[in-house]
Amino acid sequence: MSAPPPSPGSNPVPADSPALDDDGAAVGYPLLDLIESSPDALRELERERLPEVCDELRRFLLEAVLSTGGHLGSNLGVVELTVALHRVFDFRRDRVVYDTSHQAYPHKVLTGRRHLFPTLRQTGGMCGFTNPEESEQDLFHLGHAGTSISLATGLARATAHEPDPPSVVAVIGDSSLGAGVAFEALNDAGSAGEKLIVVLNDNEWSISRSVGSLGRYLSRIRSNRTLQRAQQEIHNLIASIPLIGDRVERTLDQVREVLRHSIVAGHVFEELGVTYVGPLDGHDVDQLVSRLEAARELDGVVLLHTLTQKGKGHPDAPTHPERVHAAKPPKSITAPRATPESIKVQPSGGCLEGTTVEAGISHTEAFASALAAEVERDPRVHAIVAGMPSGTGLVQFAERFPARFHDVGITEQHGVAMAAGMAKAGLRPVVAIYSTFLQRAYDQVFQEVALQNLPVVFAMDRAGLVGQDGPTHNGVFDIAYLRTLPNFTLCAPRDATDARRMLELGLRLDGPTGIRYPRGSCPGRERVHESERAAMVPGLAEVLLEGEDVVIWAYGALVPEAILAAERLRERGILVGVVDARFAKPLDEERLAKDLRSHRLLITLEEHQRAGGFGSAVLESASRMRGARAQIRVLGIPDRFQDHCTRREEQLARCGIDADGVERTVVQFLERSRV
Amino acid sequence: MSAPPPSPGSNPVPADSPALDDDGAAVGYPLLDLIESSPDALRELERERLPEVCDELRRFLLEAVLSTGGHLGSNLGVVELTVALHRVFDFRRDRVVYDTSHQAYPHKVLTGRRHLFPTLRQTGGMCGFTNPEESEQDLFHLGHAGTSISLATGLARATAHEPDPPSVVAVIGDSSLGAGVAFEALNDAGSAGEKLIVVLNDNEWSISRSVGSLGRYLSRIRSNRTLQRAQQEIHNLIASIPLIGDRVERTLDQVREVLRHSIVAGHVFEELGVTYVGPLDGHDVDQLVSRLEAARELDGVVLLHTLTQKGKGHPDAPTHPERVHAAKPPKSITAPRATPESIKVQPSGGCLEGTTVEAGISHTEAFASALAAEVERDPRVHAIVAGMPSGTGLVQFAERFPARFHDVGITEQHGVAMAAGMAKAGLRPVVAIYSTFLQRAYDQVFQEVALQNLPVVFAMDRAGLVGQDGPTHNGVFDIAYLRTLPNFTLCAPRDATDARRMLELGLRLDGPTGIRYPRGSCPGRERVHESERAAMVPGLAEVLLEGEDVVIWAYGALVPEAILAAERLRERGILVGVVDARFAKPLDEERLAKDLRSHRLLITLEEHQRAGGFGSAVLESASRMRGARAQIRVLGIPDRFQDHCTRREEQLARCGIDADGVERTVVQFLERSRV
Repeated sequence: MSAPPPSPGSNPVPADSPALDDDGAAVGYPLLDLIESSPDALRELERERLPEVCDELRRFLLEAVLSTGGHLGSNLGVVELTVALHRVFDFRRDRVVYDTSHQAYPHKVLTGRRHLFPTLRQTGGMCGFTNPEESEQDLFHLGHAGTSISLATGLARATAHEPDPPSVVAVIGDSSLGAGVAFEALNDAGSAGEKLIVVLNDNEWSISRSVGSLGRYLSRIRSNRTLQRAQQEIHNLIASIPLIGDRVERTLDQVREVLRHSIVAGHVFEELGVTYVGPLDGHDVDQLVSRLEAARELDGVVLLHTLTQKGKGHPDAPTHPERVHAAKPPKSITAPRATPESIKVQPSGGCLEGTTVEAGISHTEAFASALAAEVERDPRVHAIVAGMPSGTGLVQFAERFPARFHDVGITEQHGVAMAAGMAKAGLRPVVAIYSTFLQRAYDQVFQEVALQNLPVVFAMDRAGLVGQDGPTHNGVFDIAYLRTLPNFTLCAPRDATDARRMLELGLRLDGPTGIRYPRGSCPGRERVHESERAAMVPGLAEVLLEGEDVVIWAYGALVPEAILAAERLRERGILVGVVDARFAKPLDEERLAKDLRSHRLLITLEEHQRAGGFGSAVLESASRMRGARAQIRVLGIPDRFQDHCTRREEQLARCGIDADGVERTVVQFLERSRV
Repeated sequence: MSAPPPSPGSNPVPADSPALDDDGAAVGYPLLDLIESSPDALRELERERLPEVCDELRRFLLEAVLSTGGHLGSNLGVVELTVALHRVFDFRRDRVVYDTSHQAYPHKVLTGRRHLFPTLRQTGGMCGFTNPEESEQDLFHLGHAGTSISLATGLARATAHEPDPPSVVAVIGDSSLGAGVAFEALNDAGSAGEKLIVVLNDNEWSISRSVGSLGRYLSRIRSNRTLQRAQQEIHNLIASIPLIGDRVERTLDQVREVLRHSIVAGHVFEELGVTYVGPLDGHDVDQLVSRLEAARELDGVVLLHTLTQKGKGHPDAPTHPERVHAAKPPKSITAPRATPESIKVQPSGGCLEGTTVEAGISHTEAFASALAAEVERDPRVHAIVAGMPSGTGLVQFAERFPARFHDVGITEQHGVAMAAGMAKAGLRPVVAIYSTFLQRAYDQVFQEVALQNLPVVFAMDRAGLVGQDGPTHNGVFDIAYLRTLPNFTLCAPRDATDARRMLELGLRLDGPTGIRYPRGSCPGRERVHESERAAMVPGLAEVLLEGEDVVIWAYGALVPEAILAAERLRERGILVGVVDARFAKPLDEERLAKDLRSHRLLITLEEHQRAGGFGSAVLESASRMRGARAQIRVLGIPDRFQDHCTRREEQLARCGIDADGVERTVVQFLERSRV
């Protein structure tokens, strides 16, 4: 899947190396150097030097990630934990699964990938998650939360019969533990008794603040030390009660039994069949090593509850932990590409004004501002997010409209089903969610929403290719998995004005609506004034440019790419039409039939897998039409998982779904048909 | 969605009415008659007569459901509970959500639908689940487990601000409570403090035996009454300890606090912010009424733990509870249709032997027997089911190979992710699951399996239309939601021999495989001997009949329908070809290209939504081919949810995807093209 990462030798030394000695060579990480030189070095090191290893590792991460960007806070929080894990276990034979795996940077450093950090999340470079193509010590490529305990259970269950089975460790954060699948796994593993270590990395923060009773429960355990100190006194007290007879002694036995259960912090876990150990200071590497060594010898599921500080060692951590979740890369990396800006439109032959296009607000911001307007206008509108208030652009919204904002944490299933309940009660809930995370609630989208035909609006952010996060986060399946469900209206805006109009439409419809928009910016200056646009009604496409021979039906945020391609082709004398389909379901079949009769080639363009997407919907409609003359070419993402790239635009180009790709397709078709 | 159910007057009296008086009129349900006559009658009745209501209701259910078939056991178990709910609440304004809702028959009786029971699960009749089209007191049409608390949370959250909000009740079984989404909902609702009553209907049985720690925990609560009786004695004892000073008194306060927490059965729930009440005898209607009345006055989430006996009142219940889950209808209702049997094949022009087709073993049995053979042959093969050992045909398998069989309960997400872990450890797990329930694990299918390209085989049962269970159970989306994911091989057998060969293939492949098969029978005598079949390699279709002009590409269990249609057309002199596509992914593009060049019409036939399915895959491939002459007609399920019918074959006919529908399509095409 990934291109093989560059080898150590070929990799350039990062420009801003942390410290230089007199000769200009990089220095400062002697213990990391040592560990890199031998796979057993960390396990052979004097135990009292482990804090030094942690110091070097933390310093390295701060320096490396601040220069490339990436998930910083969670990685700074697990430095001691990761060092302890690699001290106690040998993951060439033992197994570790990092939940979500954005906290695996220290693991990457300790498994020979320190030299790759300058390429972190860059095109062709090291990915931001665990990845089996980078190391045999990365078992899975993960990015969605909650499944590490299930995966570890499977690993343990598969090897339990072996004479000397590997130790299996799952590392999971407190918020991921609130995901239903994690509960399902604990419930099963705790009951079946597989030998398994679950390290709960409790930093009281997921991406934003943890929510839910489980979070409060963990927090009570944190503050429960007083109660634990009372334990000994209680026992002393009971021992001092004078014996009055057998009956009292039996009762006292019962009291002791009750106390034994109740004063163990974490008895909820104990009741689920899990041996609870903790809470432990997650930054005391020596204690972690001791406890992991002890846990390794225990049978059944052992949960090690470690308390960590997200962003530990980062200057902002104590005051603004949310700031240190992901470091922003330097400007030069995120600068927008040049192409879609400042394009002069040829007014001849089209219906567009001659305006220029500049980088505008993000699609996320366009949605957030439209939603705020709707909430002010209509008391029935509520917003639901699943642990991503920031990613969905709704932090300010949450502050302005706290009673209308519901963050359910990383529990997409519950969030969607709850939205259905709200809709049934007369509200108009809007579920703001990444396209890729909506997959987690597919069955609730089916049963609780689509089957009931309830008016829930799904605002699907990151629908398309996402750049640095890679295939776990690409939202490229939603058209396929939603359009097969009856009752759905599916649409995608090309700009901020249509984003608003589509949200307005979705809130007026009596059934479910899916609105998809990508990571990236809306056009800064819009090409058609709102007053001149086609009405926003389901299944009505909008013709942007009339053409001859060839017409492009583009969906959503790729409409500007289609226009750009059409304009370039016009300069070459090829008149290509552009239609903004606006709806993948229902399709504008009237316009489609007309275009299929009057053109030789109809190109569909979408930021979604070719299999089952918008183009597929067009093909289905076309197969029912008579008199179609045009050939149809479906441009979309080919049938493989797309690696991370520095910029989304590179991914678009790789898939041939940017303006260049469209232009190329048209030219090739015309050349072939001329032959 | 459903046709309106027949009105009381028009409905025939069931043939085997329970008791007849001297005039031959049905008698025996005076209190149910009374309740039917007035919506308030149950609430106005003398409280001591409620057990009589329960007796009538139980007697009615036994008589009615044993004659029609349907979920009997779970309904017999909730008779007292449902009567108590309708006594305490008025669900014309209050709200009740039955999880999965197969236990809603008593609710249907008490809401004016007793007369519809002779039509239960029959075509055009009352459906087996709650259904808003039948009654305003049915809020949702449900059939998948675990979401009732989320739905109730949404209902409560939406109305919390009202001056006199309705009471909201969720009724959920112990096994459904193990579903992750239920945990997610409790975690949220318990923390947010919505006023909500969750009735836990704990019968220690889901469809088969409950699994998991939660089940054991509930079972410990059941047996915990001794401990509860000790509570008073302990308190007395503590009160009798002579006071020695302030310090001891403070310690004693702590002891009391500890005891308060620990001797409440259900402290796991209490820790999650839920007020636990119970365990209660679920067949003591008077106590249930009292506790529900008390719960109605409490704030926050109240969980009422009721202990019920599944099949209570059924003669088999104490010894064989699994037998009473669903009653089998009389033979006359399930008799197989006549058409696909004993069809003489015209040997001329085709490659088939002239054999007859008879009703064979079910597709479920074909899979189960193939799996048993594989498990005996290959030690890496394991089976995973999610609470459906019986439905997936693996009860005997589980007895024969207990170490190779893993029932994770109703936790599809965990089951799929665990399978991925097992595959990573070198095993070859087979997930046997209904197509519709695999939706619940879509994100794990994506991330844990497809993205890792792990060799997990999904044996998707009930893939297609399922007859009496209706739209919640139809498995008609899986081709769309799976084929958009890279790395998948998708196939479907037409008979038992190919079922075995496809399982063998899936277990040999290095990536994920989805094998779909429907509810229903394999052909009894197979039309091509195994030795003469095309090799079973991904993407190789098998030509069954050569034809002119028209060719049918059929997928899976509808291949026999295609053959039947072709044979009938042959008798009319129309030579229609039949191809068993076998694979929806990858497609046999070579053969497809050939057929598109050499025919005027290519029909695709599948038991799946038209949108995004097998036909859509054919259209996509065809759009990339040059020189295609044939028109393509996609036959599949139209874009709406399909109601339950007495028999699956009726549903096939309604959708035009049986032999008649294919024949009709061919004839219409030829007539049109002749014009």
